[in-house]
Amino acid sequence: MFRDPASVAVVGASENPAKWGYWLARGALEGRGRRRVHLVNRGGGEVLGVRAVARLGELGEAPELVAVCVPAAQVPGVVDEALAAGARGLLVITADLEDPAALAARVAAAGARLIGPTSLGLVDTATRLQLAWGGFRPGALAVVSQSGQVGTEIAALAERSGLGISRFVSVGAQVDVTAGELLEDLTDHARTRAVALYLEGFRDAARVFAAVRALRAAGKPVLLLTVGDSEAGGRAARSHTGALTPPAEAVDAVCRAAGAVRVRTPNELVALAGYLVATHPPRGPRVAVLSDSGGQGAIAADCLSRLGLHVPSLGPESADALARLLPPGAATANPVDLAGAGERDLTVYRRTATALLRSGEADAVLLTGYFGSYAVDSPALADAERAVAEDLAADAETAGVPLLLHSMAPDGPTADALRDAGVPVFATVETATRALADALRLARSPGRAVPRVPVHPELRSASGYLAARGALAAAGVAFPALREVRDAADLAAAAAALTAPYVLKAAWLEHKTEHGGVRVGLADPAALSAAFAEMRPRLGEGRYVVEEQDVRPDVVELIVGGRHHPELGPLVVVGAGGVHAELHRDTVTECAPVDAEQALAMVRGLRCAPLLAGWRGRAPVDEKALASTVAAVSRLVAGLPRGAELEINPLRVGPDGALAVDALIVTPATHTHEHPTAGGAQ
Amino acid sequence: MFRDPASVAVVGASENPAKWGYWLARGALEGRGRRRVHLVNRGGGEVLGVRAVARLGELGEAPELVAVCVPAAQVPGVVDEALAAGARGLLVITADLEDPAALAARVAAAGARLIGPTSLGLVDTATRLQLAWGGFRPGALAVVSQSGQVGTEIAALAERSGLGISRFVSVGAQVDVTAGELLEDLTDHARTRAVALYLEGFRDAARVFAAVRALRAAGKPVLLLTVGDSEAGGRAARSHTGALTPPAEAVDAVCRAAGAVRVRTPNELVALAGYLVATHPPRGPRVAVLSDSGGQGAIAADCLSRLGLHVPSLGPESADALARLLPPGAATANPVDLAGAGERDLTVYRRTATALLRSGEADAVLLTGYFGSYAVDSPALADAERAVAEDLAADAETAGVPLLLHSMAPDGPTADALRDAGVPVFATVETATRALADALRLARSPGRAVPRVPVHPELRSASGYLAARGALAAAGVAFPALREVRDAADLAAAAAALTAPYVLKAAWLEHKTEHGGVRVGLADPAALSAAFAEMRPRLGEGRYVVEEQDVRPDVVELIVGGRHHPELGPLVVVGAGGVHAELHRDTVTECAPVDAEQALAMVRGLRCAPLLAGWRGRAPVDEKALASTVAAVSRLVAGLPRGAELEINPLRVGPDGALAVDALIVTPATHTHEHPTAGGAQ
Repeated sequence: MFRDPASVAVVGASENPAKWGYWLARGALEGRGRRRVHLVNRGGGEVLGVRAVARLGELGEAPELVAVCVPAAQVPGVVDEALAAGARGLLVITADLEDPAALAARVAAAGARLIGPTSLGLVDTATRLQLAWGGFRPGALAVVSQSGQVGTEIAALAERSGLGISRFVSVGAQVDVTAGELLEDLTDHARTRAVALYLEGFRDAARVFAAVRALRAAGKPVLLLTVGDSEAGGRAARSHTGALTPPAEAVDAVCRAAGAVRVRTPNELVALAGYLVATHPPRGPRVAVLSDSGGQGAIAADCLSRLGLHVPSLGPESADALARLLPPGAATANPVDLAGAGERDLTVYRRTATALLRSGEADAVLLTGYFGSYAVDSPALADAERAVAEDLAADAETAGVPLLLHSMAPDGPTADALRDAGVPVFATVETATRALADALRLARSPGRAVPRVPVHPELRSASGYLAARGALAAAGVAFPALREVRDAADLAAAAAALTAPYVLKAAWLEHKTEHGGVRVGLADPAALSAAFAEMRPRLGEGRYVVEEQDVRPDVVELIVGGRHHPELGPLVVVGAGGVHAELHRDTVTECAPVDAEQALAMVRGLRCAPLLAGWRGRAPVDEKALASTVAAVSRLVAGLPRGAELEINPLRVGPDGALAVDALIVTPATHTHEHPTAGGAQ
Repeated sequence: MFRDPASVAVVGASENPAKWGYWLARGALEGRGRRRVHLVNRGGGEVLGVRAVARLGELGEAPELVAVCVPAAQVPGVVDEALAAGARGLLVITADLEDPAALAARVAAAGARLIGPTSLGLVDTATRLQLAWGGFRPGALAVVSQSGQVGTEIAALAERSGLGISRFVSVGAQVDVTAGELLEDLTDHARTRAVALYLEGFRDAARVFAAVRALRAAGKPVLLLTVGDSEAGGRAARSHTGALTPPAEAVDAVCRAAGAVRVRTPNELVALAGYLVATHPPRGPRVAVLSDSGGQGAIAADCLSRLGLHVPSLGPESADALARLLPPGAATANPVDLAGAGERDLTVYRRTATALLRSGEADAVLLTGYFGSYAVDSPALADAERAVAEDLAADAETAGVPLLLHSMAPDGPTADALRDAGVPVFATVETATRALADALRLARSPGRAVPRVPVHPELRSASGYLAARGALAAAGVAFPALREVRDAADLAAAAAALTAPYVLKAAWLEHKTEHGGVRVGLADPAALSAAFAEMRPRLGEGRYVVEEQDVRPDVVELIVGGRHHPELGPLVVVGAGGVHAELHRDTVTECAPVDAEQALAMVRGLRCAPLLAGWRGRAPVDEKALASTVAAVSRLVAGLPRGAELEINPLRVGPDGALAVDALIVTPATHTHEHPTAGGAQ
């Protein structure tokens, strides 16, 4: 009923272009060739040249979909009338309703469905259904947005960049129909080739990301725009929709697992969508840059490199082939500079680009500069430029290598022809390069099956070091040898059984170090005794333990842990330890569990990874042991109860293995510090 | 003669719009109300409705400025004719000349001046001088570009964003008139209010940056776009103009000293120029965000935070004042969300924005969302929206706080009115926030006097550790106690005079560590003897030294050094030492010398600065000693010969002072490893 209803009624239809009732009525009427459209206005009479009825009851048929844009106080009455008239779907634009939940209940009782309230509209350009402010150019991008205006901005920017809309849904307050359900509805929406999703909250994360996964499988990648990357952004989202925004790295992890990609602004989203609608992502990071300006080529190379893409120097064979096409002195190494040859003979653009497309040395080719402007500045050259453009696009398709154009005439006829032929065109070089980098991120996140693990019974209410150690050790994580000690006799036995130096820990304390509950470097039994004699009276009764201290030289300290995020599920994190952890926030997060191979990829993604691989001539650390520890932690994390956290800090990794030197588990029941487990967003 | 010539001749004038001769002739003719314009074409006849002469000699007057766009082989002849005819200025568009230097010499001998060759044109909209491809909208931005096409792109993007051009000069190959000279010429160019400068090479850095400084003093900030931030970008520049691009951090340092700011793309440049032409930079980093969409406000807050700007929670007084203007439940903490109040009453935009402008809690106010679209979507509201816009702009001016608009209708009449009234308007939120961040960078770089220091005689050919140590110690830098040793007797005396543990160094080696020329942690005289007995036969004769090892706990290791960059002059660098240095490239670079206060600001700008300020309860390090060491190093660096380098690595800094544990000086003469001192760009 929300895709192609047989009949639509707009309640609150108006002639005043400053009112929603005008835009909805006008939009609905554009679909009159396809469906019956009724306008309802309390005053009756004529609206936009069409006879309006005063009440839904007067229609003489059951309207399949009813759009409601009347003042808040009138909404309950109108909804009741609509249900009485037999409406199956309701779209409620009105905001600030008194009791939206009661409304949802009445709609559900009647077996109908409701989008909104506070929706900013519903559009399907495939069925000429247009119930929104403004107009929508038909195209391949679907927009599902928790903020109507962000959705509108995405649609407007898309239109400005030559990209049209297949479907637009402002989900509003989601009292009945949710974003997840609307995403599911897109999997078989033929016109849709990419989906823009704006979300502030993730209450419905499981359903949303299942739909995202299905959309990726259907060849319709989802580009997720979300907020709360900053404290102020999170504050805004809480105030706006009551959402507790999860950290960006957690959202990124869930996106990677589901085969989606997160973007940061409407403009970035539209750039990537324009790219994906035109062509396929690159297979790797190598980009060849071709320009009719040495300066523009260099700027593009710098932009690409900043985004982590590679602009490799071309091999002699490719460079020679280019040199034969270009004047002496033209740059052929990459970036390639036409050095004036393009303006003398437009086919040089094609011949050089094609040489690059076929070189085997580039996963994408970026043409940047004047091309596209010939038709605009010198109309006599329009046909010639268009012919070159079409040949270029065909060559890119044959080569299976994406070609992008950054053009100084992005709105010209050549640019339009290129977009239609599968070459995305961009108005600025940073937008082009960002879209390419984001497309590569998407290609590298095809999605993966994340096994669902039931809550591990032993972790249900576990807490503290010893519980964490027990669970981790059982999962195969190595810890130093340990003895529990209650008195002097235990202490002597521990000292005899273990190798010095010793560590003494007040193992039951959650914040041992802060409370003076850890003493390290106890060189002999006497030092151990003295430490215990000092600590025991101060901290009182509890489980004291003695451990062997890990004194291997040249180990690298990491933090490995994770938590069961209340909305996004289990997440495993590996990060640099010690000073690096706090100064550089060098961490990688993924959905848990991960296998050893995925764990290794996480570790290799750290900025501190060079420390592990044989730093300054040292032996490389035991990556296998490290990866297996990360994988083991991830399996435990996957079995944590919602809101619980588990962490090894530090994990000391050397050439001869990984040793967990301290660990902690915190479950919501035993939790003392602030944690968003019981938030309203649950 | 290049600003407002009394007469202009275009040689190579053509009727073919695909030729330069067409555009130059057409552009020149547009200035006919102001000056005499002559067209020259070998065929004579009529061009663009004007009678052309076949040769310059036929003009009957000396043309003040001659634009040349004939084939390369004809250029020398045409230039000679022009000089014979009495031309004072030449603009040579033609590329690929046989011998540009000879041309320059003939021009100089005649007392004339030449821009180019390979110039893409010269425009002055203040004098209706237009000798370039395409048209230029008059405005306040001057463009001086080493790449004609990058300059053209800047002008095109400026025009698209509502910003006009005051002057445009493509400097070409600079065989006579240079970018520096053209910049000087802008200081008193009344219409120019900001300058876009694209440079690949810095051969002429001293003159360029002196002009940049003068322009800043004249209230015309320079926005520098350059390339070579990446290896491929540098490769492109070398191939394009033969320039050896300096590292971006070095260019940034020189920009800060000169009062300019570096940007990374034409689009970033134009965004900042649009900001600066409309209003003044913010006084600080605090930004209030106001939106009619909770989602757009949150996205803006995230963008601002990513760029290092602050979006502080507003105090209760401001929040209360906003709450009184807004519906219940509207977000008032920052971002502020109008929650529908704006569309019910447009003056709410003004009242809330003005409350923020006057709050004293924001250094800038960013309005983001629908505002600007009322006039476009509902023409009946155009006047009302414009009135609100004008009041807003006036309030921002009165408050002395910049107001920015990100609008979904950036090309509408309200947006234009706002720009004219001093409120910059942007089409995307990332462009708006980037411009604001860049404007703050500019405000924080007012320029500073960098004293010129003559080359220090003792540093002219100094090399190695002992030379560096000598110069640094004389400048007040602390080193560990040291004894030179030649034999066993020296060794015993050294051991007796110094406190263990000892360090033994083969002090004359440039790469001591790599050659096994350093032994640390020698705990007693016996260990010292053994180390010397091993090292001496292996490394042979040379200056061996014994030092006391710095074993203070909890010190932080830094690298302090610098070099006399062949083009950009002396630069001082401070960076994190050890592992941080290579993994995180945590460095700050400034022009040398710096005083102690500037040195302290450098140190505090490091990402590792928290380590210095009392990390995890440790005592803070002696920042004064650290700053004074950095300042001392910078003074020595300022006195280095061109191409030389000086470095302390590491400088160990603790609560009780800073100690230089190793140091090195390398001057070009003694230099063995690769260094761009003798490059062609000299």
